[in-house]
Amino acid sequence: MNRFTRFTAVVALLMAAQFAGPALASDPLPSWNDGASKTAIVSFVEKVTTPGSADFVPEAERIATFDNDGTLWTEQPMYFQLYYITDQVKAQAKDHPEWQSTEPFASLLKGDMAGVMASGKHGLLNLVAATHAGMTVSEFHQSVSSWITTARHPTTGKLFTEMVYQPMLELLEYLRANGFKTYIVSGGGIEFMRPWAERVYGIPPEQVVGSSLKLKYEVRDGTPVLVKQAEIDLIDDNDGKPVGIQSHIGRRPIFAAGNSDGDFQMLEWTTSAAGARFGMIVHHTDAQREWAYDRDSHIGQLDRGLNEADDRGWIVVDMKNDWNAVYAE
Amino acid sequence: MNRFTRFTAVVALLMAAQFAGPALASDPLPSWNDGASKTAIVSFVEKVTTPGSADFVPEAERIATFDNDGTLWTEQPMYFQLYYITDQVKAQAKDHPEWQSTEPFASLLKGDMAGVMASGKHGLLNLVAATHAGMTVSEFHQSVSSWITTARHPTTGKLFTEMVYQPMLELLEYLRANGFKTYIVSGGGIEFMRPWAERVYGIPPEQVVGSSLKLKYEVRDGTPVLVKQAEIDLIDDNDGKPVGIQSHIGRRPIFAAGNSDGDFQMLEWTTSAAGARFGMIVHHTDAQREWAYDRDSHIGQLDRGLNEADDRGWIVVDMKNDWNAVYAE
Repeated sequence: MNRFTRFTAVVALLMAAQFAGPALASDPLPSWNDGASKTAIVSFVEKVTTPGSADFVPEAERIATFDNDGTLWTEQPMYFQLYYITDQVKAQAKDHPEWQSTEPFASLLKGDMAGVMASGKHGLLNLVAATHAGMTVSEFHQSVSSWITTARHPTTGKLFTEMVYQPMLELLEYLRANGFKTYIVSGGGIEFMRPWAERVYGIPPEQVVGSSLKLKYEVRDGTPVLVKQAEIDLIDDNDGKPVGIQSHIGRRPIFAAGNSDGDFQMLEWTTSAAGARFGMIVHHTDAQREWAYDRDSHIGQLDRGLNEADDRGWIVVDMKNDWNAVYAE
Repeated sequence: MNRFTRFTAVVALLMAAQFAGPALASDPLPSWNDGASKTAIVSFVEKVTTPGSADFVPEAERIATFDNDGTLWTEQPMYFQLYYITDQVKAQAKDHPEWQSTEPFASLLKGDMAGVMASGKHGLLNLVAATHAGMTVSEFHQSVSSWITTARHPTTGKLFTEMVYQPMLELLEYLRANGFKTYIVSGGGIEFMRPWAERVYGIPPEQVVGSSLKLKYEVRDGTPVLVKQAEIDLIDDNDGKPVGIQSHIGRRPIFAAGNSDGDFQMLEWTTSAAGARFGMIVHHTDAQREWAYDRDSHIGQLDRGLNEADDRGWIVVDMKNDWNAVYAE
């Protein structure tokens, strides 16, 4: 290489750097390492948004649904809503002496969370009904809004809303910037998420689908209220997820993200229709920065999903290797 | 007035006409006669959308809910969905000999619609359950989509979708142009409205709230389907309307329009919170161009609403005098 050639090469490199610069700076997914997962996401979004592409999807039909616990924020050592319920049970325990000898209240009051979890989903629903029923939706929103700004995670000491995944925030924003409507479809309580989902995830209340108690409309002293009843309306988990999606959205998503077998049917429903479809599982592989669990976990068990992801064309995101950051700093 | 003054005056008039012209041409509610109703609508929209106004409402909170039957389209001589159900019952009758002697099927098959209506809402729900249950949501959408493009109203001979109210189409569009999100909240079936609401009203499936049957997720020969069950999920009427609003939208509307006492609680819920609120009742007063009915009607009964509208600050739209057109031509 002579001087002139070298000079030309340097200029070319500088020019390349200059052109590459803005592209790198505007990477919409900076917390995602380059690799198969990131490539799959970007190429899916590009093909469904490119006019004239065989896979083009009109903007109105770009529906993306996200599980919450374990997909958008951490769910260990137990679902965060359970910390809220624990605080409520403790506050109300003096009015309920029977809880000292009734499961899962007794375990919860003793701090034996394994005992609480052993009562299964039905036990958890008993806790929800006992502590939430009778509150108006407005009272409940105020209670959650106040709790979520002060309560802290027992291990990390962070606010729970500081334990949302930075790569998933970027993914939500990236999809919205490409004309997607982003929804939460969670087994957690719909009214537990609504008070803060817009601030934290940019997802407004009307795009939150979750488990719910029946509501009753009453007029109290001339003031109408909606009162939470001690009766399940929808368990938005497993088979309930496609049901919640149809009820609230009325369209089939083209993109769905989950992390556990509770999301299996949502991914199946999303990805088994015609046209371009995207299914994604967040695999918790990072014991150092977060938690590592899958097939044997009592929370967020992921077994069938791991077995079938390949055959179904779902991408499995390896938290440890695919993400260069877990939580927003 | 000398020649020069006259010339100046003419120029001034022409200029005024020129400036007035576009304003008149862009009247967003041309089918509404000038009067108290139109003035109330426009002044409400202006005050909630004017930044700095004491009544300003951020765009995200501009939720407007509309009843469908009798508010956006005609509901006489009976709810249009009942014509769809009639056609289904007739088509299925040969497989159900027991219907010949079971109400309300027997009345329906004899064409005795008064007998059908006498069975009340419960009877209508039986009809819905018997004819819709077992269909998948997708099959049901196809059936409704096909029916709605060919079935015609017995009196007018119009397609049912040609019997939507032009002034209400303008109102929907005017609200959306001012940042409102427009929703249907109807006692009619949610999946009956979704297939055509976007084309006819500009309201997408995710903004349609209605009565519903429970859904069940099944995988049939590897293909997932959502099957309508013979069990009510929500009756989105009366007390059910605020419940449906909270479940689907999660925010309290600031604008609600209805036409019958089935909309009373939706209007009450909407207008009894703090801040600028708008409640509106379409009063069917036009026997010539549409139908005239209120306190004694079996369909769309409006009694309590008429009694209390004034005290509650709801405007009562007089179809005959407030609208210069009823249906779109």
